Amino acid sequence: MEAEFIHWLRECVPPRPSMPLALTDDAALVRWAGSPHIVVTTDLLSDGVDFRLAVDDPRRVGRKALAVNLSDLAAMAAEPLACFVSIALPSTGIGADQPLELAKLIYAGLLPLAEEFGAFLAGGDTNTHDGPLVISITALGNVSKRGLLMRKGGQPGDKLLVTGALGGSSLGHHLDFTPRVREALVLHENYELHAGIDISDGLALDTSRLAEASGCGAVFNSIVISGNALDLAQQESASDLGAAALRHALGDGEDFELLLAAPPSAADAILSDRPVECPVTCIGELIAEPGLWKQFGNVARTPLEPTGWQH
Amino acid sequence: MEAEFIHWLRECVPPRPSMPLALTDDAALVRWAGSPHIVVTTDLLSDGVDFRLAVDDPRRVGRKALAVNLSDLAAMAAEPLACFVSIALPSTGIGADQPLELAKLIYAGLLPLAEEFGAFLAGGDTNTHDGPLVISITALGNVSKRGLLMRKGGQPGDKLLVTGALGGSSLGHHLDFTPRVREALVLHENYELHAGIDISDGLALDTSRLAEASGCGAVFNSIVISGNALDLAQQESASDLGAAALRHALGDGEDFELLLAAPPSAADAILSDRPVECPVTCIGELIAEPGLWKQFGNVARTPLEPTGWQH
Repeated sequence: MEAEFIHWLRECVPPRPSMPLALTDDAALVRWAGSPHIVVTTDLLSDGVDFRLAVDDPRRVGRKALAVNLSDLAAMAAEPLACFVSIALPSTGIGADQPLELAKLIYAGLLPLAEEFGAFLAGGDTNTHDGPLVISITALGNVSKRGLLMRKGGQPGDKLLVTGALGGSSLGHHLDFTPRVREALVLHENYELHAGIDISDGLALDTSRLAEASGCGAVFNSIVISGNALDLAQQESASDLGAAALRHALGDGEDFELLLAAPPSAADAILSDRPVECPVTCIGELIAEPGLWKQFGNVARTPLEPTGWQH
Repeated sequence: MEAEFIHWLRECVPPRPSMPLALTDDAALVRWAGSPHIVVTTDLLSDGVDFRLAVDDPRRVGRKALAVNLSDLAAMAAEPLACFVSIALPSTGIGADQPLELAKLIYAGLLPLAEEFGAFLAGGDTNTHDGPLVISITALGNVSKRGLLMRKGGQPGDKLLVTGALGGSSLGHHLDFTPRVREALVLHENYELHAGIDISDGLALDTSRLAEASGCGAVFNSIVISGNALDLAQQESASDLGAAALRHALGDGEDFELLLAAPPSAADAILSDRPVECPVTCIGELIAEPGLWKQFGNVARTPLEPTGWQH
């Protein structure tokens, strides 16, 4: 539904010079007279959709609510600056936790991450209602010296790099992932990157978004399949374990890894320099021909469905 | 619950030079190297708490969700700049409206207000969940040339001015009020104001907050009772209509009018110049003695309960 809604909204909201990215990227850029730009992102999470309080520790839930926003800032290579946290607490509490206790647990998970990444808590709103837990966080960031990384800007021939490994996030990674803020800042400052996105809705879908925004197509030559994706495939007793794991890596979403498009020389330098702690892998390239493709080994290129979480 | 929670939170979050107002005023001030400050406020509204979709038009609900944020910016005499809108839609929709239709109606109420006050829509998040409608909006504003208006700064002898009339907002004003952004900017730019707050939780409670933040007490000499407050008193068939209406004006909340503390000369100038369209009335003054008081006519000063909406 969200894709259709954003399409409608773009028709309603006129473009403005002060909001050059309005409604197109992972975060918005706001600028005004005499000021550096500011990057702003907002994400709303609900119980039963983005987490399950019946089984998930409220601390992990609070942490996730901030982490997904930090991942959006990372996608644009912006430096976290502040966060604002609005919470609707179920008036009955959850289990043995009264609303106030629940709020404290959420913050106990959120605040250390805010400190770690410099997204200091600056304000918020805490209410109770007759409904499930809802957490809405808005995070502000600085544009880094090299400017903003965006979905557009990729060129045919650019290598596609990913951080970490993909798929099976529902096993727990979606609550405990480390947003790739540091990686984005280091890579963007020291290497030529043309485009970037965070993989929140699935590698295939988010790659097709970056490619489309860049006016290109994309072809995968390899995929970094996570242990979780393999675990999930195994739990499903899939007859073809490899194919099932690949399906998870391509379409699961909530990996919150970075997908970057970089010219071959920069990509090679990143792969040989290893400037960040997490693994960075080349999984394909942007091509002139539109669409999403795979070409694993010495076979012909075949089209690939942009699977992922369509909101 | 919120007051207790904010008290706990302030203990957890260390003060930072970059967030000089964190968790004390209607909005937060964020500053960073080489940049003018930015004012940020966030409010979350839920169905059944802040509006009732069963009877309230979704357009009025969307408008209110933004207007309460604009009122917070007005309280600090900040100029609206951008807004970010996160919505959790009930997955079943409301009445005949499917979630997508509901989202469009909410925006149809919100967008004209955003345009009118320059709080241009810059981003957001729209999801469905198995729960009531929740709208969380974050608004950004510029600090005006005269700097920020805050709750602190009032001095004994300052006159207390209010815009508009108070009480009975539940009859509809809480959905349709005009945030006092223009009034705050004009008054702050042209007259010496010492302190300000928007009356969101009740005149008595919000006055005691301003007075306390300013290290003063406050005494009311008169109250501007709205027609709605009188209507409510009448509907309740109160034996003492005047006392009932006064109770509504003092404690109802959601008036979203401004309460300002200004030195007598500035207050007199505002009252005689009439520089804004809405009525501005002097209702009392700040005093050295702490607490909230009333002194209507030639009687002794008596203490007044800081009634209002305790979250």
